[in-house]
Amino acid sequence: MSDKSAVTVIGLGPMGRALAGAFVDAGVRTTVWNRTPGRDRELVERGAVRARSVEEAVTASGLTVVCVVDYDAADAILRRDAVAAALKDRTVVNLTADTPGRARATASWAADHGIRYLDGAIMTPTVTIGTPDAVFIHSGPHDLYREHLPVLEALGGTHTHLGEDIGRAAAYDIALLDIFWTAMTGYAHALAVAKAEGITARELAPFAKGISAILSPGFEELAARVDEGDFSGEGNPITSAASSMAHIIHTSEGHGIDAGVMRAAEGLARRVIGLGHGTDGFLRVTELLGRR
Amino acid sequence: MSDKSAVTVIGLGPMGRALAGAFVDAGVRTTVWNRTPGRDRELVERGAVRARSVEEAVTASGLTVVCVVDYDAADAILRRDAVAAALKDRTVVNLTADTPGRARATASWAADHGIRYLDGAIMTPTVTIGTPDAVFIHSGPHDLYREHLPVLEALGGTHTHLGEDIGRAAAYDIALLDIFWTAMTGYAHALAVAKAEGITARELAPFAKGISAILSPGFEELAARVDEGDFSGEGNPITSAASSMAHIIHTSEGHGIDAGVMRAAEGLARRVIGLGHGTDGFLRVTELLGRR
Repeated sequence: MSDKSAVTVIGLGPMGRALAGAFVDAGVRTTVWNRTPGRDRELVERGAVRARSVEEAVTASGLTVVCVVDYDAADAILRRDAVAAALKDRTVVNLTADTPGRARATASWAADHGIRYLDGAIMTPTVTIGTPDAVFIHSGPHDLYREHLPVLEALGGTHTHLGEDIGRAAAYDIALLDIFWTAMTGYAHALAVAKAEGITARELAPFAKGISAILSPGFEELAARVDEGDFSGEGNPITSAASSMAHIIHTSEGHGIDAGVMRAAEGLARRVIGLGHGTDGFLRVTELLGRR
Repeated sequence: MSDKSAVTVIGLGPMGRALAGAFVDAGVRTTVWNRTPGRDRELVERGAVRARSVEEAVTASGLTVVCVVDYDAADAILRRDAVAAALKDRTVVNLTADTPGRARATASWAADHGIRYLDGAIMTPTVTIGTPDAVFIHSGPHDLYREHLPVLEALGGTHTHLGEDIGRAAAYDIALLDIFWTAMTGYAHALAVAKAEGITARELAPFAKGISAILSPGFEELAARVDEGDFSGEGNPITSAASSMAHIIHTSEGHGIDAGVMRAAEGLARRVIGLGHGTDGFLRVTELLGRR
């Protein structure tokens, strides 16, 4: 039978292994399963229990944590009759990253099969799992979240319940990954331009760190104003941003370096200016993007 | 005659006014000029000297700091016979933002007219000027930099001389603005997607701050590896990045929100994968962009 201080981890990629390892380290009875065999060796040496099938894995615990590459993979594992039957009245916490729509669709399937379902996302790299630096977000029924939080807290870090709407954690995840991957693309591009100008990544990095230190308080300061529809530019009109962007594109393309990302960004700024908002701040772009 | 503890500031936009104000506050004799009259009123009340022409302005000090919208504006002010004659044997520190090529071209003009010339860039917002948070970068003849540094230090913050190549400060500026504006575009887009999912900017901001806290050490850690041509993906292959990007695009476009920036970014990741580097990390994109 299931045990309140037991957990099953489905998916043993780098993140799944980190999750299972943190449960084992915290003394939670941990059962593991992965589609490709062999990934569980080290975990089993540390005390995890190897399951021979998904059905066996999910039956071993009242709580199953799923962390695979995307919902196609998660659905391929979970949405089979034998697995659905084994999961009935048990809880799945799906930490797989995908879109809010996919989270809602899988939650609906779970409800149809009497499976208790929470969706979540992990906002920090694998190395943070089991440490205070980990950040987990969850959404779905609050009572279900509270019931399993004591076991989930074995993963370390902070856990935040964002609301009952099952798609909410995935929506936060998407928005935050949007910031992360866009910024990383900017960094990759900046390194290419710097290199063409004879500047090494190491030389640029301390200043890049300074830029990221400016971004962080900027995000918070601008957020309150955006919510109130206040896009005023003050000393920083979007025309200046567009001018900087044009310099970046010109320098980049002058070195034969593709500037497609910045061209798309400049296009948004130019459209805002063309719509008569040139003295507004750059975040007027948010309103342009959200128009219907 | 010129005075070693005197400075002229050309250009009184928000940044130019902040620079002139910091010089005045530090007790440096400050002469100001702006193409559009009236911008100097508050500065003159605080003790700055109003010049009636550019020639008069630059003659008042051995050092002229120029901070206008771009080099088209700077050249329109400086590259006139009367001004060039007035500037002969004096120093111009051009803090105007533009491309490295424009900085090199204006330096070449200055050399032809016996004008001593340094190029620079300001990496922090106007509010930091005169405070320890300001960041200035400079390039050009090192002895000229050392000669004027005592006056420039009245602007507060840290000043870094990046090398004798006059275009170097502009090249750093371009690379750093590339990171800044790409990241801001990601933030603006994330806020639009979040809003469509019923998440306010204020709700997202604390997590966005967390993302920016991850970016900063990531920049430094990755820099050393990029310089050595080490793009290994470890637990973070570019295939995962491409998968996240596809989720972002799908969610965004599902709400009718343009995802052109992320589509361009995903295109870079997909090309890296297509070239056989799918197990490498995302920064392999830097190498793809830099190919000739």
